[in-house]
Amino acid sequence: MIGHGFMGAAHSQGWRVAPRFYDLPARPEMTLLVGRNAQGVEAAARKWGWEETATDWREAIARDDIDVVDIVTPGGSHAEIAIAALEAGKHVLCEKPLANTLEEAEAMAEAAERAGTNVFAMVGFTYRRVPATAFARDLVQSGAIGEVRQVRANYLQDWLVDPDAPLTWRLQKDHAGSGALGDLGAHAVDLAQFVTGQRVIGVSGILNTFVHERPLLGEASGLAGTAVSERGSVTVDDLALFSGRFDGGAVGSFEATRMSTGRKNAFRLEVAGSTGAISFDLENLNSLGFYDTTAPDTRQGFTNIMVTEPAHPYMSAWWPTGHALGYEHGFVHQAKDFVEAVMEQRQPEPSFADGLQVQKVLDGVERSAAADSVWTKTI
Amino acid sequence: MIGHGFMGAAHSQGWRVAPRFYDLPARPEMTLLVGRNAQGVEAAARKWGWEETATDWREAIARDDIDVVDIVTPGGSHAEIAIAALEAGKHVLCEKPLANTLEEAEAMAEAAERAGTNVFAMVGFTYRRVPATAFARDLVQSGAIGEVRQVRANYLQDWLVDPDAPLTWRLQKDHAGSGALGDLGAHAVDLAQFVTGQRVIGVSGILNTFVHERPLLGEASGLAGTAVSERGSVTVDDLALFSGRFDGGAVGSFEATRMSTGRKNAFRLEVAGSTGAISFDLENLNSLGFYDTTAPDTRQGFTNIMVTEPAHPYMSAWWPTGHALGYEHGFVHQAKDFVEAVMEQRQPEPSFADGLQVQKVLDGVERSAAADSVWTKTI
Amino acid sequence: MIGHGFMGAAHSQGWRVAPRFYDLPARPEMTLLVGRNAQGVEAAARKWGWEETATDWREAIARDDIDVVDIVTPGGSHAEIAIAALEAGKHVLCEKPLANTLEEAEAMAEAAERAGTNVFAMVGFTYRRVPATAFARDLVQSGAIGEVRQVRANYLQDWLVDPDAPLTWRLQKDHAGSGALGDLGAHAVDLAQFVTGQRVIGVSGILNTFVHERPLLGEASGLAGTAVSERGSVTVDDLALFSGRFDGGAVGSFEATRMSTGRKNAFRLEVAGSTGAISFDLENLNSLGFYDTTAPDTRQGFTNIMVTEPAHPYMSAWWPTGHALGYEHGFVHQAKDFVEAVMEQRQPEPSFADGLQVQKVLDGVERSAAADSVWTKTI
Amino acid sequence: MIGHGFMGAAHSQGWRVAPRFYDLPARPEMTLLVGRNAQGVEAAARKWGWEETATDWREAIARDDIDVVDIVTPGGSHAEIAIAALEAGKHVLCEKPLANTLEEAEAMAEAAERAGTNVFAMVGFTYRRVPATAFARDLVQSGAIGEVRQVRANYLQDWLVDPDAPLTWRLQKDHAGSGALGDLGAHAVDLAQFVTGQRVIGVSGILNTFVHERPLLGEASGLAGTAVSERGSVTVDDLALFSGRFDGGAVGSFEATRMSTGRKNAFRLEVAGSTGAISFDLENLNSLGFYDTTAPDTRQGFTNIMVTEPAHPYMSAWWPTGHALGYEHGFVHQAKDFVEAVMEQRQPEPSFADGLQVQKVLDGVERSAAADSVWTKTI
Repeated sequence: MIGHGFMGAAHSQGWRVAPRFYDLPARPEMTLLVGRNAQGVEAAARKWGWEETATDWREAIARDDIDVVDIVTPGGSHAEIAIAALEAGKHVLCEKPLANTLEEAEAMAEAAERAGTNVFAMVGFTYRRVPATAFARDLVQSGAIGEVRQVRANYLQDWLVDPDAPLTWRLQKDHAGSGALGDLGAHAVDLAQFVTGQRVIGVSGILNTFVHERPLLGEASGLAGTAVSERGSVTVDDLALFSGRFDGGAVGSFEATRMSTGRKNAFRLEVAGSTGAISFDLENLNSLGFYDTTAPDTRQGFTNIMVTEPAHPYMSAWWPTGHALGYEHGFVHQAKDFVEAVMEQRQPEPSFADGLQVQKVLDGVERSAAADSVWTKTI
Repeated sequence: MIGHGFMGAAHSQGWRVAPRFYDLPARPEMTLLVGRNAQGVEAAARKWGWEETATDWREAIARDDIDVVDIVTPGGSHAEIAIAALEAGKHVLCEKPLANTLEEAEAMAEAAERAGTNVFAMVGFTYRRVPATAFARDLVQSGAIGEVRQVRANYLQDWLVDPDAPLTWRLQKDHAGSGALGDLGAHAVDLAQFVTGQRVIGVSGILNTFVHERPLLGEASGLAGTAVSERGSVTVDDLALFSGRFDGGAVGSFEATRMSTGRKNAFRLEVAGSTGAISFDLENLNSLGFYDTTAPDTRQGFTNIMVTEPAHPYMSAWWPTGHALGYEHGFVHQAKDFVEAVMEQRQPEPSFADGLQVQKVLDGVERSAAADSVWTKTI
Repeated sequence: MIGHGFMGAAHSQGWRVAPRFYDLPARPEMTLLVGRNAQGVEAAARKWGWEETATDWREAIARDDIDVVDIVTPGGSHAEIAIAALEAGKHVLCEKPLANTLEEAEAMAEAAERAGTNVFAMVGFTYRRVPATAFARDLVQSGAIGEVRQVRANYLQDWLVDPDAPLTWRLQKDHAGSGALGDLGAHAVDLAQFVTGQRVIGVSGILNTFVHERPLLGEASGLAGTAVSERGSVTVDDLALFSGRFDGGAVGSFEATRMSTGRKNAFRLEVAGSTGAISFDLENLNSLGFYDTTAPDTRQGFTNIMVTEPAHPYMSAWWPTGHALGYEHGFVHQAKDFVEAVMEQRQPEPSFADGLQVQKVLDGVERSAAADSVWTKTI
Repeated sequence: MIGHGFMGAAHSQGWRVAPRFYDLPARPEMTLLVGRNAQGVEAAARKWGWEETATDWREAIARDDIDVVDIVTPGGSHAEIAIAALEAGKHVLCEKPLANTLEEAEAMAEAAERAGTNVFAMVGFTYRRVPATAFARDLVQSGAIGEVRQVRANYLQDWLVDPDAPLTWRLQKDHAGSGALGDLGAHAVDLAQFVTGQRVIGVSGILNTFVHERPLLGEASGLAGTAVSERGSVTVDDLALFSGRFDGGAVGSFEATRMSTGRKNAFRLEVAGSTGAISFDLENLNSLGFYDTTAPDTRQGFTNIMVTEPAHPYMSAWWPTGHALGYEHGFVHQAKDFVEAVMEQRQPEPSFADGLQVQKVLDGVERSAAADSVWTKTI
């Protein structure tokens, strides 16, 4: 695994726990953890249970005993590592967003294509693997809400409301590509497309930055450390608003924000169809709202389904009905799905091509925002 | 009162009940009800308690014993009636939206201006008079959420999801002006501006019509009656999505829809500021969510305030704490506020100028939607 | 109407509004308002729209032009007034609880029985007339939840949490009979029985008083006025907890409290049956939760039904779908039901016999509480 | 670890994950898994990552390289194993309830006492270790809700609503001791006492069994296997209702049920004090409701605190704010707390003495239920 920030902890938990609950065709071995800071990567490896460490990701590529490269670094380094790994015949799991620029994402998708039918690449949109969202997709695919018409996908956080929140790499365009748009908007687009089965074909959007200067972090690198009194420029958006049209005729409203005071991790997805609707909020991730217009008039309403039944996606491996899962279970499910697909020589989803398509939508939003919100095609 | 549809019942209840709970400086007399259909208007008058009826609104204007003209007809007739009433020196309460076209709205605002300082005109945005929204404005004005940054105003209904819902006047451009935009979007814009104290200065939007043909109603007039098998064209939108920027720097996301399956009357307003946030949903109208970032870290969260304390707006006249109000109470509060303002020779709010400004925003959305969603100034 | 406190305002609104929304077989005339304090009763009559006033309730009984006597005084005076009215051939609507003592309640039920088939008496358990609770009963009667097994009926208020809340008549045993038990517990028992269609046959309970002394009110009568520094003894309970068994085999948990901090008017009723369940909370009175075990496994959950469809009880007369009713609508529905039943010479429900049966349950709780919570039969 | 049912999976996850997120003074080694069925225990060990297996728990006691014995068998075997382990100088973690009978529980508490100051025993009430409940206790202890007055502790499940749910060991008195009372009621009593800091001193209760016969399981042992057509007798309660008084003056209402249709794992705790209140529901375990009467009148309400801040109990080790934990995290926290206490030679809580005290309350409920619900002292 390359990288050992917050996502590193989550992916480690995924690899560690998946084989303890699911009967996998192969048991993942947590061989090598890579990070630029030797001390930091060793501490992380010891804590999370990785056998060895390295400070250069090329070492992972070079080793014969490594079959899978898991990339959890900031977006700017994804392309170089992923392409090298694929060229070396490694399967790749890469965190989202696929890359910081459309060009890089395209190169990655091409590399995945070139890698052939036995080498697989997947992008880490884990929110597809919350049982409630996976079940939402099942409902839509089964026709339970009819023809999909309206989508509302809002990913709301508030960690930038405080003007003294520091200038991390996530707020610098050269490291992060974009701000709320690329980080949260990518999830919103992917999940909306995953659940509806439709793709966004055009957008109109605006980007906004409410707080333009923030405290620098102590290290010159700007990537980690303690905040200091000096301030630097925020070069990415902290709010993205856009509307989109889907290839199946649906119309969507999207919002990605780190300035939604009081919303900690409120990823809300609402989908309305001709005969039903679904409603999801990541802050209450074990539940799914479902409305069915075919029920008797007087008994209609949003049903609050606890998505904890054995027959719900992913749930048969876990606890009795009504016992909640948490955030990290998405990573366990991701590890499971990845291992199963690779071992069965199937393309794991979402592919790099899927990741690229999401990037194209985000790119369309940026272009629209730069051109007075004019409607912009994304396919 | 001119008109006797759904709004007529609501306004009648307002005039009837207001003096029974509030000590008003004058008691409204329900003198004359006007409707084009003699039989219909007589039945309505008998039911709602109006003393007399007429079939021509000019009769109301002509009578000396009538001081107030309350207009609850479809939007296309507002301008003619309101202007005549104002010119005759009557105070006017006019249902929203102010008019179907910007031109009519401007003429109305001018007439109100011309009417002088003793004749008053008000537009009926009753959702300002839900205690929870009035209290939300108080909170914002008191600085409780700091500088307002983000607004989310979604007015969601679902009564057009059924493709066999009939083609009423509300779905015909010549009667209604626009669809969800003018009916629901007008509320969204007014309430967002009312609560934040900021005005929308530019917009980008899209309009959509999902169902293009619907059953005609039996009467040729198309305004009432029973659905028949023949179908006619829906000439207004059933979904409007737009983003807006406010003069105080806030950014807003707006949605008005009659196609949001399962949402009956979900007028949701969320406002995030630099030190707090508020959250409201008309489907649960006695509550207001309030988030305060100045509370201790571990005790922050959205507080579900039951807006039923005597110290909350409008509430001292009603029931003990915890006893809910309903939809129609907004009309009671409107009658109270109107009577008090007129008797004290103050301009009741919102004025026709306020209504015109809302129309300008809606007009901007229509122009943007017609021009590939390009950013469009509204002031 | 005899009495002009909080309940007087609610009943007045009921009589006033019912004929404006429902087509009643007779229109109620608000003839005479009676109160001991001449000034107070005149002010109330003027405000609420009663034509005349009196200071002695016997005047209402004596008048030939009065057909209905509506009693909204404290419980201690119910028996005398109601019995006199019935003996004079007046129809009687009496606020709950029926009386302060079992003896009085029995006398009232006997008087109602003696009054013959053309004179009717009803007790005012208005929470039966919230559309959601009436619909809950319909669901249970239709078999939608199967055999009723578990009942949870908690009526939670918090207006006595403050130790300086004054010693009103509701806290004095000679005026109020009991405390939370008689005031709130009466509603809990009646509504549980109404919705389940079963009657409580035995109970075990405890009563508690957390705050034993409270500020006296200024007037010697102790029934109204301003709090003074002197304190007097609270002679009723502020919390009642009891379990009960129903004649149909169900088991119930009941709680009535004025000390449930933060709960303003949280009357919660949960009923679980062999194939479904319902859930209601008066703080959100337009909704009903409904669980149906016959739905597919993966789609089960509590459905949040907005009880605002035309096909729901009482709703066809009101607003479009999704427009909320409030607390006072129960009184409008009560007036409607009472007038309809009386004009059709049917016994309006709940009868005095029903009210007496509730009193017997409350009496059982008091006897159990006085005897170490031992199981006590109530039928 | 002795036992490998559902609890075995949860405890295994606790031991495995705790050292990956917390810096523990010692890293647990998952040495030996014991189960009566050789094949079953080997499969479980392989899946969960235990190094060795045995079919006789005495082997675990006999081994010198085992320091901790974790008991997750049905309650009837707890006493024998725990006492032997303690006598052999092993630290013991024992699932709740401590034992099936008061006598066994007393013997266990005595054995823990005898084991001396360097050998520790703890009982597994993991719901104390949900961050929200731990924080609730902190709030109460800090005085945030004042003097505790009212407790409502309902543990509601519905897995016995179906009359064809099989007759597992949990429904047989000789294996399980009691039914909902011992399984769910034990949690309710422990958590109520933990959060309030008060102990239950007397109770009045009823027990009920709605379904008396259920399908037998295929194996003669009756402990596992597939349901067959023959039916056997349910010998435990499926509903327990009781009220209790606490040593600090609080009054509580308790309910434990497996028949609450639609409630999957709804462990609800509501505590009202003289200046505030808290509200918790295990079905939404990342949230805590908090009401503060010292807030301004118009701003009071239940604050929905997402208990995911770094400053909340247990949370600094996990994910960013707003990222949910699940059911099993309680077991991770339990492992952490146990290891830390043992390594620091502190008594881990809850002790066997605490577990015994809970048993005494449950025993009091059984005695009260057997004696017409008469009030029964539990201390």
